[in-house]
Amino acid sequence: MPVEHAERSPAAVVSSFGSRLAALVAVRESQIVLGLDPDPSRLWPDAYAAADRAADGSPASRAAAAVVAHCRAAIAAAGPACVAIKPQVACFERLGAPGWRALADVAEAGREAGLLVLADAKRGDIDVTATAYGQAFFGGTSTPFGDVGGLGADALTASPFLGLDSLHPLLEAARAAAGGLFVLVRTSNPGAEDFQEPADGGTPTLSERVAVAVNALGQLPPEPREPADVGAVVGSTAPERLARMRELMPRAPFLLPGIGAQGGRVEDVAPAFAPGPAYGLVSASRGIVAAHERSGAPPATAARQEAERLRGIAWELARG
Amino acid sequence: MPVEHAERSPAAVVSSFGSRLAALVAVRESQIVLGLDPDPSRLWPDAYAAADRAADGSPASRAAAAVVAHCRAAIAAAGPACVAIKPQVACFERLGAPGWRALADVAEAGREAGLLVLADAKRGDIDVTATAYGQAFFGGTSTPFGDVGGLGADALTASPFLGLDSLHPLLEAARAAAGGLFVLVRTSNPGAEDFQEPADGGTPTLSERVAVAVNALGQLPPEPREPADVGAVVGSTAPERLARMRELMPRAPFLLPGIGAQGGRVEDVAPAFAPGPAYGLVSASRGIVAAHERSGAPPATAARQEAERLRGIAWELARG
Repeated sequence: MPVEHAERSPAAVVSSFGSRLAALVAVRESQIVLGLDPDPSRLWPDAYAAADRAADGSPASRAAAAVVAHCRAAIAAAGPACVAIKPQVACFERLGAPGWRALADVAEAGREAGLLVLADAKRGDIDVTATAYGQAFFGGTSTPFGDVGGLGADALTASPFLGLDSLHPLLEAARAAAGGLFVLVRTSNPGAEDFQEPADGGTPTLSERVAVAVNALGQLPPEPREPADVGAVVGSTAPERLARMRELMPRAPFLLPGIGAQGGRVEDVAPAFAPGPAYGLVSASRGIVAAHERSGAPPATAARQEAERLRGIAWELARG
Repeated sequence: MPVEHAERSPAAVVSSFGSRLAALVAVRESQIVLGLDPDPSRLWPDAYAAADRAADGSPASRAAAAVVAHCRAAIAAAGPACVAIKPQVACFERLGAPGWRALADVAEAGREAGLLVLADAKRGDIDVTATAYGQAFFGGTSTPFGDVGGLGADALTASPFLGLDSLHPLLEAARAAAGGLFVLVRTSNPGAEDFQEPADGGTPTLSERVAVAVNALGQLPPEPREPADVGAVVGSTAPERLARMRELMPRAPFLLPGIGAQGGRVEDVAPAFAPGPAYGLVSASRGIVAAHERSGAPPATAARQEAERLRGIAWELARG
């Protein structure tokens, strides 16, 4: 065992994020990530009653309590077909302090269900600030009043605009918890072309330059089937680009948003899985949680069926 | 009065962010932004007693109460020489729910002191998520339980990596509150060169492409001395670049971090002020709040003196 691991947490001593991810994907036979983007006006109907159990009667506290009930129900329904949850931090942050508490509750519910917690926050800032975000999302903060726990996430999405020195402190915090990062490389929205592609159609594109950096940043587990601890957010809406990205980042796990509501198809993400089943995580948010709006089935039933449908397709692709 | 303003708040009807900024800079004769990056282990000594007034005895609540007292004291001391505060959201977020409440308290303290509130959060995400961040930092969120207020910021720092469609919802939320955005264009950290400059030294750089987009995005008040409502974060550590950035963004207000602790000198930012006094905001965080560590004076005295010193230099530059 390497000496430099001596003072880390037990989790870090026994594993890395890539090893943990590979083990969990294998056990659950799933690469599906349940995206949780709760909109207080579009929760599952049964969740609204939970507002009466809020700590106080403020709209924020009541909405936050309903959001937690909604997310817990979604995790109970779809979680068995998934390997991780991906709470969208913005949706919690808009509820203020009660929202941040709800985020912690939802992360806890994910852990209880045996799922990894990928905090989708897309943070990126200068070194001292990145250290503070690392404390917020991973291990926590030492204060004169005692230790303040962080969110306890297993991984965080990060924006590379400020450069590598903005990613290093986040990665350090992640590694201390055997966690990882997913760095934005090529996103799934139409505006991705504005800056991620070059103005003149030449190469390398910004996305390609970030990809090269992401590839260099990750620590590699010895087992080839286990991905590195620095992954890439790569939109699933352009399959031909996925192959190029895999070429540039042969050992990075890909987080693939955009399935369903944003127009991506799980059938198209096969290049992500080329190195092994744990190298592609297929994220669906509204595609799973709002499946009942399309099928007419009860929300939990529709979510379970859609998550299981996606799981089956992705698992077959990865085995192929 | 344009019809489309009819349903906006009174503030939005009478003004734009650029007009408000220009008026406040003129009245206060200051372009100094008080950066608030509170570290619970390095607060002003008198702030620690406030922990005993925390809502509960948890480390997070006690640390958050001390952070609020520290920031209030810094605002009371240095605020009279400033035009805005710039709370660093990461430093609050690491204290969890109590931290988010502390952020709201600090924003309120800034407003009470007559200062603009620039939330330094560097958010950037796809459209639906950007809408949620807009709700968090500006006006708020309608829920079935009633309206949940946002932070009430006057402006937000934003990351452009995902493209223009990630900025539009933030800008829409800002404008509805007569607020603005400061988009990352060229940051002050060493790693800025990793992606903001081109790999081959050619042009346009990523920073230049973002600058052109920022320039096109802002709404212009009729008065030339009033800047647009979309500004740029431009590091103050490379004055020759400032002139180029001003050329590309003739009407954008510049938020200039990096004075003091990061090595920037206020004397070097003159190009930012070329169009008028409100076109450059000089941000100093540790440079003001930790001034006592260099001078040996009491914290409030040292902060007041340093803020006033920076104010005097910047104001002279802008008049020159």
